Amino acid sequence: MTIKITGQHLIAGQWTGETEGGFTAFDANTHQPINIPFADATTEEVNTAIIRANEAFVSYSQLSAAKRAQFLRTIGEQINALGDELVEAACAETGLPAMRIQGERGRTVGQLGLFADLLEAGEFPAVIDKADADRQPVPKPDTRLGYLPLGVVGVFAASNFPLAFSTAGGDTASALAAGCPVVMKAHAAHPATAELVARAILKAVELCGVHKGVFSLLQGKNYAIASQIVMHPSVKAVGFTGSQRVGMILQQQIYQRPEPIPFYGELGSINPQFLMPAKVALDAEELSKTLIASLMMGQGQICTSPGVWAIIDSDDSYNRFVNSAAETLSQQPAGVMLTPAMCAAYNKAVEERKSINGVELLATGLSGEPQQCSATLFATDLNTFVNSSLLQQEIFGFSALIVRCADFDEMMQFITLLKGNLAASIHAVDKDFDLARDVAQTIAHKVGRLIYNQVPTGVEVCASMNHGGPFPASTNLRTTSVGSEAIKRFQRPICYQNMPQELLPAILRN
Amino acid sequence: MTIKITGQHLIAGQWTGETEGGFTAFDANTHQPINIPFADATTEEVNTAIIRANEAFVSYSQLSAAKRAQFLRTIGEQINALGDELVEAACAETGLPAMRIQGERGRTVGQLGLFADLLEAGEFPAVIDKADADRQPVPKPDTRLGYLPLGVVGVFAASNFPLAFSTAGGDTASALAAGCPVVMKAHAAHPATAELVARAILKAVELCGVHKGVFSLLQGKNYAIASQIVMHPSVKAVGFTGSQRVGMILQQQIYQRPEPIPFYGELGSINPQFLMPAKVALDAEELSKTLIASLMMGQGQICTSPGVWAIIDSDDSYNRFVNSAAETLSQQPAGVMLTPAMCAAYNKAVEERKSINGVELLATGLSGEPQQCSATLFATDLNTFVNSSLLQQEIFGFSALIVRCADFDEMMQFITLLKGNLAASIHAVDKDFDLARDVAQTIAHKVGRLIYNQVPTGVEVCASMNHGGPFPASTNLRTTSVGSEAIKRFQRPICYQNMPQELLPAILRN
Repeated sequence: MTIKITGQHLIAGQWTGETEGGFTAFDANTHQPINIPFADATTEEVNTAIIRANEAFVSYSQLSAAKRAQFLRTIGEQINALGDELVEAACAETGLPAMRIQGERGRTVGQLGLFADLLEAGEFPAVIDKADADRQPVPKPDTRLGYLPLGVVGVFAASNFPLAFSTAGGDTASALAAGCPVVMKAHAAHPATAELVARAILKAVELCGVHKGVFSLLQGKNYAIASQIVMHPSVKAVGFTGSQRVGMILQQQIYQRPEPIPFYGELGSINPQFLMPAKVALDAEELSKTLIASLMMGQGQICTSPGVWAIIDSDDSYNRFVNSAAETLSQQPAGVMLTPAMCAAYNKAVEERKSINGVELLATGLSGEPQQCSATLFATDLNTFVNSSLLQQEIFGFSALIVRCADFDEMMQFITLLKGNLAASIHAVDKDFDLARDVAQTIAHKVGRLIYNQVPTGVEVCASMNHGGPFPASTNLRTTSVGSEAIKRFQRPICYQNMPQELLPAILRN
Repeated sequence: MTIKITGQHLIAGQWTGETEGGFTAFDANTHQPINIPFADATTEEVNTAIIRANEAFVSYSQLSAAKRAQFLRTIGEQINALGDELVEAACAETGLPAMRIQGERGRTVGQLGLFADLLEAGEFPAVIDKADADRQPVPKPDTRLGYLPLGVVGVFAASNFPLAFSTAGGDTASALAAGCPVVMKAHAAHPATAELVARAILKAVELCGVHKGVFSLLQGKNYAIASQIVMHPSVKAVGFTGSQRVGMILQQQIYQRPEPIPFYGELGSINPQFLMPAKVALDAEELSKTLIASLMMGQGQICTSPGVWAIIDSDDSYNRFVNSAAETLSQQPAGVMLTPAMCAAYNKAVEERKSINGVELLATGLSGEPQQCSATLFATDLNTFVNSSLLQQEIFGFSALIVRCADFDEMMQFITLLKGNLAASIHAVDKDFDLARDVAQTIAHKVGRLIYNQVPTGVEVCASMNHGGPFPASTNLRTTSVGSEAIKRFQRPICYQNMPQELLPAILRN
């Protein structure tokens, strides 16, 4: 690499931290350590980052929307300017192919641009109720509804999106857009990628003359860092994408705070697919291929991966579907997971699933190098699904479970068993309409996104997106982590009553 | 009364419950019990109410916005049809004067109408991003952002607003508007008022043909009722207005739920008033009278009562203000509190405040009957305020504390000491502008409503209102309990992707 990776933290504009005795990342393709030592943030370093962020809040929260927009666009430009080195670092650290990383870079820069557009178009709709001195029985005061940033936001990078949900990803972009400084905990699986993106942010900070405390990157493997961030009194909101286990530990800690703060955790989802009878009869083979292509994306390490497929075992079309799905899956190439630990966890979860009575292994994908994993496809009946809580849990990776329902009533019963999910798809043709409507009206209350005849992978970044959903898909079902609405997580309403024009935000003036 | 008060619960259209051995309310004016026995809800009754509400959710959540609007308006009409009996019951149970109760009835009916208007105008803005098959590198799917009701909402009535924040008050109105059934825990201080309003809701349920489970009223004094409501798996959100102590007990219980749910608690506020130097010099007497008139509203038992006044002791205008305030307050009539227990709590808090070193009792209002309380005005300096956490706590009632700041720096330091509040006012003239701006920019981050030259009491019910604020003013600073935005607390976003027109909410169709 031509950019030297320091292995240090970026704390309010300074590269700092002792890397000796720190941790190393792994090359996901070879499972060999990459020989760059990274620092493990100390209590003092975490504290400094948060204190400097809180200092930055004073000026940054008052920056005009236009200047915040310019800052976001500059970050995007600087990320693009990192060129192939960023792609190479991310590919090595995650095992994801270059095309995927390039696409994710585009999405990351696009997200920054989306929020910049939003700020330039008018950060929020102006709601103004003017005074009415003649109103009876009492005069009506002038009231105007505005929004203020919450304060310092702690963000935890995701393992599976080294760019789009990490250093300058959706949480960072929406928090900065809202007017909040960010203290970012890099993911220990891709620290060099994080450092490179932090360099881009630092350049943007310098070019735009923004307070340097507005962004800090903390490297580390020590859980105490996470704990310290979420418990710090100056941290006013937390964005997290990761496992349900770690997410719930953080949530329980936040519950102990004297001052409650919002915790935006995205914790996992099995994203049920509903395969309606006439659709299966018409399209069994095509549908099985479509679902498996979706399952294979990123080796299934995608939050919207289609993990459970409900189908009615009504006639021979069921067998056609299952046979085609099994045959298609058995030809899928092996692939590396994001980290050696995730590889081991995937293999363990697959073995556990194999051992459940009533669960059948329909197919295994091609095998490869020892460090690669193979896709798997299981089938079970509703009764087994009812009785095994393990089957409700996400397997992080390219494993899908077909739930065979004896009839449509069983499919509706299957819905009642589900917990919250990010997304569900209904695959149907016109003849299925009445059944599809019943499924839609019921599953809607368990998902953040309801899809018709499309796969759940591939989340649009736009104003109408919702990426969240009932627990455990997210810890706050009234918010989204993707799309323009994500900015609202880091703002809160304030009513200005009878305020002089000069003291109102520009958007609320006459 | 011509309407017989049964003392029973209304559970999904049925009056039920054993009143023998139950509790009685008190006449707030005489502190004598009112001889009507009220039932204490049993575990089975609470469970039935919630189960029936959850059954009602299926049809009620799918009711058109127009029909929900009609239901809300009908509730308002039926409340008005209760006539003077409602006013008499509320006056007896709360000690509030008839004019206040009549005004509150108007506000309650007005709130129901506000949400009906909102539903008729279009429940939420349609955000539609149409498909683009030609987009590169992948086609853009059709995505549309809608909102779904959360499910059954538990609501706890407020002691101090027997109509506007109780049975058919803001929480109920906004939850019903959102499409959520309501299980209401009546306040034990005004159970007859609650029963009368519940009768109005039941009539509206019958007239509009809505599922009877959509509203239940539970009477009781037993804390187990509250606990059972917030812990029930079918309850999906809770609205609460009350003390910080009880609110935090409920919040801690909710934290133990397997599935987290939003808790909208409004827990108390001291609503700081900033008296800027030139304003005080010009208007000391007038300003003192204005603030005391605001303090006296409802004997100060109003969440936005101005409890702490910061002023700079710069010249003789400070003394003019203090003398005028003390003289004005000393002439204020005694009055009854909402309940005998609140009367005792107020007197105890006043005695505690008197005993703090560095706090001076400036004036006491007129004394009256033994069951009446007298207003009080205290003063202290910043140093004492810093060192006494008791002074940060709300006294529920007509007691105000003047905080004497040596200079403007001390006033700014005072702001840093404050916790979250519902509202703050800045009282200023043009000459104060630079100081007022500094105060505004800083205090804005600690309040839900920022007011210029008006008192905090008298909350407008309109689209631009925000009645909430940082903790402990509320447990969820991103929401309001008053105004049109209150509906959002009980809805959550859902993205519909590639959905057939027939399966979309009307507002999202082409």
